Amino acid sequence: MAQKPSIPKGTRDFSPNEVIKRNYITGIIQKHFQVFGFQPIETPSFENSETLLGKYGDEGDRLIFKILNSGDFISKVDDYTYSSKDSTSLGPKITEKALRYDLTVPFARYVVMHRNEIEFPFKRYQIQPVWRADRPQKGRFREFYQCDADVVGANSLLQEVEFIQLYDAVFSDLKLQGVTIKLNNRKILSGISEVIGAKHLLVDFTVALDKLDKIGREGVEKEMLNKGISEAAIEKVAPLFSLSGTNLEQLDALGLMLKTSEEGSAGVEDLRFIVQTVEQLGLEVAKLEIDVTLARGLNYYTGAIFEVSAPKNINMGSIGGGGRYDDLTGIFGLNDVSGVGISFGLDRIYLVLEELELFPESIEQSLEVLCLNFGEKEALASLKLISTLRKAGVKADLYPSDAKIQKQFKYANNRKVPYVILIGAEELAKNTFVVKNMMDGGQKSFDLERPEEFVQDL
Amino acid sequence: MAQKPSIPKGTRDFSPNEVIKRNYITGIIQKHFQVFGFQPIETPSFENSETLLGKYGDEGDRLIFKILNSGDFISKVDDYTYSSKDSTSLGPKITEKALRYDLTVPFARYVVMHRNEIEFPFKRYQIQPVWRADRPQKGRFREFYQCDADVVGANSLLQEVEFIQLYDAVFSDLKLQGVTIKLNNRKILSGISEVIGAKHLLVDFTVALDKLDKIGREGVEKEMLNKGISEAAIEKVAPLFSLSGTNLEQLDALGLMLKTSEEGSAGVEDLRFIVQTVEQLGLEVAKLEIDVTLARGLNYYTGAIFEVSAPKNINMGSIGGGGRYDDLTGIFGLNDVSGVGISFGLDRIYLVLEELELFPESIEQSLEVLCLNFGEKEALASLKLISTLRKAGVKADLYPSDAKIQKQFKYANNRKVPYVILIGAEELAKNTFVVKNMMDGGQKSFDLERPEEFVQDL
Repeated sequence: MAQKPSIPKGTRDFSPNEVIKRNYITGIIQKHFQVFGFQPIETPSFENSETLLGKYGDEGDRLIFKILNSGDFISKVDDYTYSSKDSTSLGPKITEKALRYDLTVPFARYVVMHRNEIEFPFKRYQIQPVWRADRPQKGRFREFYQCDADVVGANSLLQEVEFIQLYDAVFSDLKLQGVTIKLNNRKILSGISEVIGAKHLLVDFTVALDKLDKIGREGVEKEMLNKGISEAAIEKVAPLFSLSGTNLEQLDALGLMLKTSEEGSAGVEDLRFIVQTVEQLGLEVAKLEIDVTLARGLNYYTGAIFEVSAPKNINMGSIGGGGRYDDLTGIFGLNDVSGVGISFGLDRIYLVLEELELFPESIEQSLEVLCLNFGEKEALASLKLISTLRKAGVKADLYPSDAKIQKQFKYANNRKVPYVILIGAEELAKNTFVVKNMMDGGQKSFDLERPEEFVQDL
Repeated sequence: MAQKPSIPKGTRDFSPNEVIKRNYITGIIQKHFQVFGFQPIETPSFENSETLLGKYGDEGDRLIFKILNSGDFISKVDDYTYSSKDSTSLGPKITEKALRYDLTVPFARYVVMHRNEIEFPFKRYQIQPVWRADRPQKGRFREFYQCDADVVGANSLLQEVEFIQLYDAVFSDLKLQGVTIKLNNRKILSGISEVIGAKHLLVDFTVALDKLDKIGREGVEKEMLNKGISEAAIEKVAPLFSLSGTNLEQLDALGLMLKTSEEGSAGVEDLRFIVQTVEQLGLEVAKLEIDVTLARGLNYYTGAIFEVSAPKNINMGSIGGGGRYDDLTGIFGLNDVSGVGISFGLDRIYLVLEELELFPESIEQSLEVLCLNFGEKEALASLKLISTLRKAGVKADLYPSDAKIQKQFKYANNRKVPYVILIGAEELAKNTFVVKNMMDGGQKSFDLERPEEFVQDL
């Protein structure tokens, strides 16, 4: 019996309409990556296991898909290990390769392996799928694309400025108004924990602060007390809860609060430079906002931290993020290479554009012209015309059989074809073709010898 | 100690120059797929194992990469199977998913699962990587892209005509002269084996015939005799060894030889229609050639068989191929859906274009304009100019630090940047910028308020 087919949970088929819309987004992202001077690289879908394992914490290691060794994989397992029947010790003996979990670690591996042929500073972009054995749920998949741009080997804060401009350029081109780019700096978070005398509690402290939106000032303070931060210390960071005014005014307040911390002050100065430079250059659609509660990727970012929020009227998490990390390639033996990068969340951007109906209408016209098929002789004349249209770049097709005309028109409607061409016996005799405009129903006749007149009309 | 990183054998990193060239090829293929009315789909990188296994023969099954189940995979293996310590019986118990081996089986699975939302005839294209655990060797990889276009649900031979035009359009756009599209039909091969009274020896017979180029007529006849084909039978197909003249003349000779075989005659008539129609429509760069020795994919093609050869002066196997298969989706329970499709060999086309130096020169200019960096104040003025250039679609960048000017020029040279912009203290005072043409060394000054004058110059 034939199988009833299905696909693995957490994966997706993309139908034409979806692929076209996804390509619309990645096409715009890619265009701006290029215009900003980034160069594309691609890395293999699977890496040697040791390249990936241990880079994302224990939870990450569990979520990495491992590829079973080919051939007689089990014969290479020693009897002692085999007798344990233990997945943890058996796994590494029967797998050598694993699907990539993100684009950052493979990029670091790439930089180290190719360091002699790379021109530094190296600005690279990479748009490829990644895989995670996460529990699938709404908006979370086991296969999804990442769209990353990073610069390695450049310490200048102008890089951070450029990434903010890049976000703005992409969202502007996507006609997405109301996006907010939130900006923080790990040095500021460090500085705060230093000022309150709880440097070792940096993570606890930022986790609590991160909840300000949800649980309010009182809730955050309560959680800080529970974590062992003193009341006197909490008093010192009171300004955090009432930051207001422009970005520069907030930075002034932070600067005062952190004046005794060298690291904190440096973080404030970094952000001041970024904010001032961005203000001088101007943004098209995005808003830049200092957000000291922003603590994503705290375990690897060492400088600026970015996160992009969808417009406020949309219920959606972040649609992008990034930051500066000071030692990306150290894990592979190349030290002192500073990096900074951002990522675009393709799936979420897709949902936002869908909800706000921001995809261009013409995107659904995967076919511009359909020639109806009235039989062999007429079809041949149609094919000649179609050849000419295609050479002019027009997406044109012939209905592949002389089915009932009604059926052919139905096909044209379903594929949202704007123009249908008719070459029946009568037209053939007169050496003409008739174009029917499917939007307004209008018809127009053209000379088969002068198809360019129709092309100009398009 | 830091790891010395490497990548799995048979996989590749693609550096910017390679990605750009690969994208140039797939971009052209994709453009023509669309112009010919094909729509894109994408399927997941891994499928349920039962979707893939058993579809490519025993050898294929061995070459499919299996993904180890996540979590405590071994606890689900019964003790009996475990005690055997046998890879063949253990494998299926610890893997449920596998990386796709080609795009055809996932496409068939897609068509069956989505049949209620698909408009038939369905013309789809798909450009995605596939994985095979093959022994890596020169030109054979464990991860590579396939570029496929297929039509399902259309029986007309006009589809075959279109695919020949499509090959021609793509290779014409790639400026690749001298490509030969070889054409055969399984019905002709069947007819021949019928005429010689050795229908059951079809495969042996075509395997022998396939070697005509290499071992000559005598060699082929000897091999046929060895396989049990009689001398009298071989005599009947003598015309095969001396086919000459135009395609239509060769088809006439074949028609005579196969006149007693209904199937063989039908095959000849099919090819006659295809050849005649293609002749009326004309081809730009490719040559269409009947080749009765062509027997690729004999176990699944049921009608036309295509294969594309690189220009004769290039030592390279086929750079594309395809054919008609009458029951693609039957394995998944949807019968009577005829399909026909072709594939482009990306890696080989790349090598051919490289060898013939057919990549456009401008392809290496991933950056059009580099602004040198003379310090903070000058850099800010440069960034403003760069913003304007980028908005006009120019790939422009600022060197990220005020390094020695010689170093910055070296970077521009290595990245093959055609224009370098200088805004030093002097220019800033005069509100101008200087453009240095890196090809001829010429310099020209522009007003910082009117960057559009430079853009027009580009």
